[in-house]
Amino acid sequence: MDSRPIGIFDSGLGGLTAVKEAVRRMPGEHIVFFGDTGRVPYGTRSTPTIIRYAMEDMRFLKRFDIKTAVVACGTVSTTALPELRKNFDLPIYGVTEAAVDAALRESRSGRIGVIGTNASIRSGTYERLLKEQCADAEVVSIPCPLLVPLVENGRFDPADPVVRLILEEYLAPITEFGADTLILGCTHYPLLRTAVAQVCGPDVALIDPGRETAEVLAQELSANGLAADPDRKGSLRCFVSDDAESFSHFGSMFLGRDIEADVSLCDISAEK
Amino acid sequence: MDSRPIGIFDSGLGGLTAVKEAVRRMPGEHIVFFGDTGRVPYGTRSTPTIIRYAMEDMRFLKRFDIKTAVVACGTVSTTALPELRKNFDLPIYGVTEAAVDAALRESRSGRIGVIGTNASIRSGTYERLLKEQCADAEVVSIPCPLLVPLVENGRFDPADPVVRLILEEYLAPITEFGADTLILGCTHYPLLRTAVAQVCGPDVALIDPGRETAEVLAQELSANGLAADPDRKGSLRCFVSDDAESFSHFGSMFLGRDIEADVSLCDISAEK
Repeated sequence: MDSRPIGIFDSGLGGLTAVKEAVRRMPGEHIVFFGDTGRVPYGTRSTPTIIRYAMEDMRFLKRFDIKTAVVACGTVSTTALPELRKNFDLPIYGVTEAAVDAALRESRSGRIGVIGTNASIRSGTYERLLKEQCADAEVVSIPCPLLVPLVENGRFDPADPVVRLILEEYLAPITEFGADTLILGCTHYPLLRTAVAQVCGPDVALIDPGRETAEVLAQELSANGLAADPDRKGSLRCFVSDDAESFSHFGSMFLGRDIEADVSLCDISAEK
Repeated sequence: MDSRPIGIFDSGLGGLTAVKEAVRRMPGEHIVFFGDTGRVPYGTRSTPTIIRYAMEDMRFLKRFDIKTAVVACGTVSTTALPELRKNFDLPIYGVTEAAVDAALRESRSGRIGVIGTNASIRSGTYERLLKEQCADAEVVSIPCPLLVPLVENGRFDPADPVVRLILEEYLAPITEFGADTLILGCTHYPLLRTAVAQVCGPDVALIDPGRETAEVLAQELSANGLAADPDRKGSLRCFVSDDAESFSHFGSMFLGRDIEADVSLCDISAEK
């Protein structure tokens, strides 16, 4: 058993969709979450800047003597994971690997769609991992730069005509391609799950990378004797680089419960 | 005459709409522009974070021995201007004052609309300045948090149905209110001018704060003997905190000419 906390970070609020699954799956774990709300979004920035920000985020989490880290951010997972693993001596989980495994399990036709930020799609990571594991897989990848701003502004109601119009535009090539499985390749996107499902129709399986990653993490911690005492009551501490109050408000929507008491502001620019 | 450069900064690309007017109006001036593309957008961040970022932006521009600074960012102009003026000993122009003057000159009915970022509208600055100068003015202010992401993603074509739908939503209260004048209270918005005009109709005068501010600056530099030699050929150097290449591409759309040769990357986080 290992009583140390799990560290999880994201560019902003989206990572909380992974945190929610981790809390549900591993109620005995202490979790420290960092959301870089002072510099969100990452997905429209350049690769060197995404790597620099991710390094600072990890340095911050390392302060808490974490036993493992989850990069609950599609952009960082696709763009900066090798750099993080090279520089930090602890197990680091991205959200891409588990999502790829789940998509290949789920798909019957081998036709898989991926939506993500500009940086994630530009990296080609999802496409490469899918092809490595299944040479016959056919993949269509669509960058969706307006989805993070929509979610960060609290707009994910399927009845919202703006949400619907933007999703129809982004998802049209997925539908035309005939994908039977769609990876929601950014941790913000599960908030849009109902809206995406309405646009794609019921025959497309939606893969939530944060959920899949939490599942794999729980299994691996347990298998390696690194899980916390299951009888212990876990905890969740959240840190953000801007506006803890607004984070509490929107964060409770993501987590489905009130997290106000657990949110603190921190200065990420000190993590050089 | 004062041969020193003029410093101009914005959270991202939007400030170039003011730079364009400054170059046109003062062709002999050397201009140094900084766009904080590594941390854009500012308008959805908290007031303390906006002030901190603005202070760092000004410290960067001060390196260039500038004679005056223009805050070509609606969010910083409405939210951090007093703090900047308290901390830096040079004339600092925001974009709000000149826009308010222009709106009051332009409006016949005294019914004035303002659109801006969340932070700008939350500050109440435009409304306060308008009422201070004209007690009878009636003002409606609408926060438009999705417009900066649209523009930063190159989406400002009036025929773009997403642009149109979002503008129809944001501008409906302006139209219902019967405003005859609308302040485009964020330097990104002049890129959407044609689209805004189509939604508002031809009877609403649109005020571009960057253009008005460049006009006032040119007059005041000249009146105070601080203008550059008018026979000199001016220059434009641009610095960004992320992705100089993409800035060159989009920046040329903003400026209406190719600025590639003049763009450099800089590390703003060093400006403590």
